[in-house]
Amino acid sequence: MKLGRLNHIGVATPSIADSIAHYRETMGATDIVEPFDLPEQGVKVCFVNTPTDSGMNGTQIELIEPLGEGSAIRGFLEKNPLGGQHHVCFEVEDIAAAREWFEGKGKRILGPTRIGAHGTPIFFVHPKDMMGQLTEIMETPKGAH
Amino acid sequence: MKLGRLNHIGVATPSIADSIAHYRETMGATDIVEPFDLPEQGVKVCFVNTPTDSGMNGTQIELIEPLGEGSAIRGFLEKNPLGGQHHVCFEVEDIAAAREWFEGKGKRILGPTRIGAHGTPIFFVHPKDMMGQLTEIMETPKGAH
Repeated sequence: MKLGRLNHIGVATPSIADSIAHYRETMGATDIVEPFDLPEQGVKVCFVNTPTDSGMNGTQIELIEPLGEGSAIRGFLEKNPLGGQHHVCFEVEDIAAAREWFEGKGKRILGPTRIGAHGTPIFFVHPKDMMGQLTEIMETPKGAH
Repeated sequence: MKLGRLNHIGVATPSIADSIAHYRETMGATDIVEPFDLPEQGVKVCFVNTPTDSGMNGTQIELIEPLGEGSAIRGFLEKNPLGGQHHVCFEVEDIAAAREWFEGKGKRILGPTRIGAHGTPIFFVHPKDMMGQLTEIMETPKGAH
């Protein structure tokens, strides 16, 4: 496997509304996508786009707020009430090949491959097998970049 | 202030050598810069370059390992022995104007503006004032991008 694009960093927040205000008013973000619910993953999601030399196609900030009682990020927010860095997400060309690759390396994959916030298949790899980083692997959207 | 490029994400590690092996062998990184010491900040540093459509100029992974007894990241590693996400770093055009901006917003800046790992002036803003994210602000290197 070859290292893909760092698609986004996931940032947990107790309030996407407060985080949007922070990114807009303090950090000067100008391109923030409308938040949406991802009920299968128990999160509300909002992408903050960041610039590169050629546009707003840099690594995104993915704001995630708990949705529903069983949300997986509630535990994270109990330990980090202000929110904070939750995961990193790298792109791959072929999600099935990537899953096989990580399994072959003995890495624990968290649950089945499923559809993520960009509408393409994703899976998560256990932070204890990834030098402390919860790592999302996502298939590059077709026609992207 | 306008949101700048997400220059890098800082990842603390107990061993840069182990992290390099992880990024190379598990994540498939091909472009890893030679590690170097940054004694003023009490860290050893190593950059992992990530791809974009136009080259290896994506947001970098900055691996940081404690250097010396007083290293600021020892406390982080005591809480997170495997390592993990430590900070995010955004670029600005003018570091003095950015410092004034954050001060004007009532954000606590950690120490003086100093020279960072890319050889340009940087400062850090307190995570408790930044929605839980330790945030580094760095001046864009001249001639970069």
